[in-house]
Amino acid sequence: MNSVIETILDHRSIRQYKDEPLTDKQIQTLVKSAQAASTSSYIQSYSIIGVKKKNTKEKLAELAGNQPYVAQNGHLFIFCADLHRHDVVAEMEQKDVTTSLESTEKFMVALIDASLAAQNAAIAAESMGLGVCYIGGLRNNLEEVSELLHLPKRVVPLFGLTVGYPIDQADKKPRLPMEHVYHEEVYESNHDVYKNQLLQYNKQISSYYNERTNGKRKDTWTGQMAEMLSVPTRMYMKEFVEKKGFNRK
Amino acid sequence: MNSVIETILDHRSIRQYKDEPLTDKQIQTLVKSAQAASTSSYIQSYSIIGVKKKNTKEKLAELAGNQPYVAQNGHLFIFCADLHRHDVVAEMEQKDVTTSLESTEKFMVALIDASLAAQNAAIAAESMGLGVCYIGGLRNNLEEVSELLHLPKRVVPLFGLTVGYPIDQADKKPRLPMEHVYHEEVYESNHDVYKNQLLQYNKQISSYYNERTNGKRKDTWTGQMAEMLSVPTRMYMKEFVEKKGFNRK
Repeated sequence: MNSVIETILDHRSIRQYKDEPLTDKQIQTLVKSAQAASTSSYIQSYSIIGVKKKNTKEKLAELAGNQPYVAQNGHLFIFCADLHRHDVVAEMEQKDVTTSLESTEKFMVALIDASLAAQNAAIAAESMGLGVCYIGGLRNNLEEVSELLHLPKRVVPLFGLTVGYPIDQADKKPRLPMEHVYHEEVYESNHDVYKNQLLQYNKQISSYYNERTNGKRKDTWTGQMAEMLSVPTRMYMKEFVEKKGFNRK
Repeated sequence: MNSVIETILDHRSIRQYKDEPLTDKQIQTLVKSAQAASTSSYIQSYSIIGVKKKNTKEKLAELAGNQPYVAQNGHLFIFCADLHRHDVVAEMEQKDVTTSLESTEKFMVALIDASLAAQNAAIAAESMGLGVCYIGGLRNNLEEVSELLHLPKRVVPLFGLTVGYPIDQADKKPRLPMEHVYHEEVYESNHDVYKNQLLQYNKQISSYYNERTNGKRKDTWTGQMAEMLSVPTRMYMKEFVEKKGFNRK
């Protein structure tokens, strides 16, 4: 196993950081790494906002559901789907591109582009001895986040990425069995096989929690997921992204 | 610069591969790397189909717009947004999760999850001396791709990832100026500054093509983008993903 794969497999989310800001050189390396990712037909449909100001970070932490590590970290990146620049492109080139930009296809492209870039930044950070945590909680209040970051139309914040020198050493949570996620040739169609993989995984997760909490927690993955998904969240999203000019047609 | 960042910055899309299949061990390493990526609230909302069969690859190559490298490579992965397993979870746990699963929010989560996983696999592959290329062309015909791979409801193929031993040594295409993609504190609001960054980039891209084609091609990035975006493509996508149970509410 080489050091790249070691870095990738050793990932864990870090939620406590030393009070030490990243240098501009480090930030630059992470952004350059993000930009090196593949991009659909060269479209480069994302932007990154880097937040250093304490005040802004604290507001974002509050908006993300009072997660303290959104404010206390070495640096905070916000990854955004961005088709605003393509509106400017259209203006420069005198072309009508509205139908394209408002399509669900381009919404998907922008999300994929931004995510590939973010994961490059995350891996690069981890290779530098830094820890990272994705902040989906920012999607709790995208209207306020967008205002705070002065985001124009056709820019939607997707998630944050906190980066910094780790204090805690979080555990790696076991993933679904590989054969449940990876299908050879066609998707697994045997319902019993499929369900048994989940039951098997439940046993593993249950003992994972059991060990780490001295028997206080024994929840299963399917139990956790069903609980979480039975309470719909962020149901304003469809209207929000449409208002921002995405996913309309 | 460490070897991880070197690998990331050295990325280029490889479209010609030696006729040498990946070993099962290599495939396993790539899938495990994919699975090590962060996942929103532990939801793990993606699946990967691995295609080895020549016949299937050739059909997929045709569906993706006759790109020969979709058929000729060391291995072909198809990354899918997957909330099917969460339907099974709901059945197992006797909970109603439909509103959650059909939300635009969870559509976004599944796309982000799948993309983070894919980029881990891509970087892992490149670290092993393999080349990769993302295949967005699969989205030309998702109905047929889904049938071919026996995908159930709430599974949508997002893109392929071809992997193999590279024959060609493609160039790295210059990315947008870092300051155009990376904004400090707030999004760049000065239209002139923003536009000038694009004009500057155009010069760079123009001479990039000029050099590589002995003066035959001189197109700019804004010109390319405006041309591409003025012809809307894959406009069936909204209806398709809704039919598959995503992005409905």
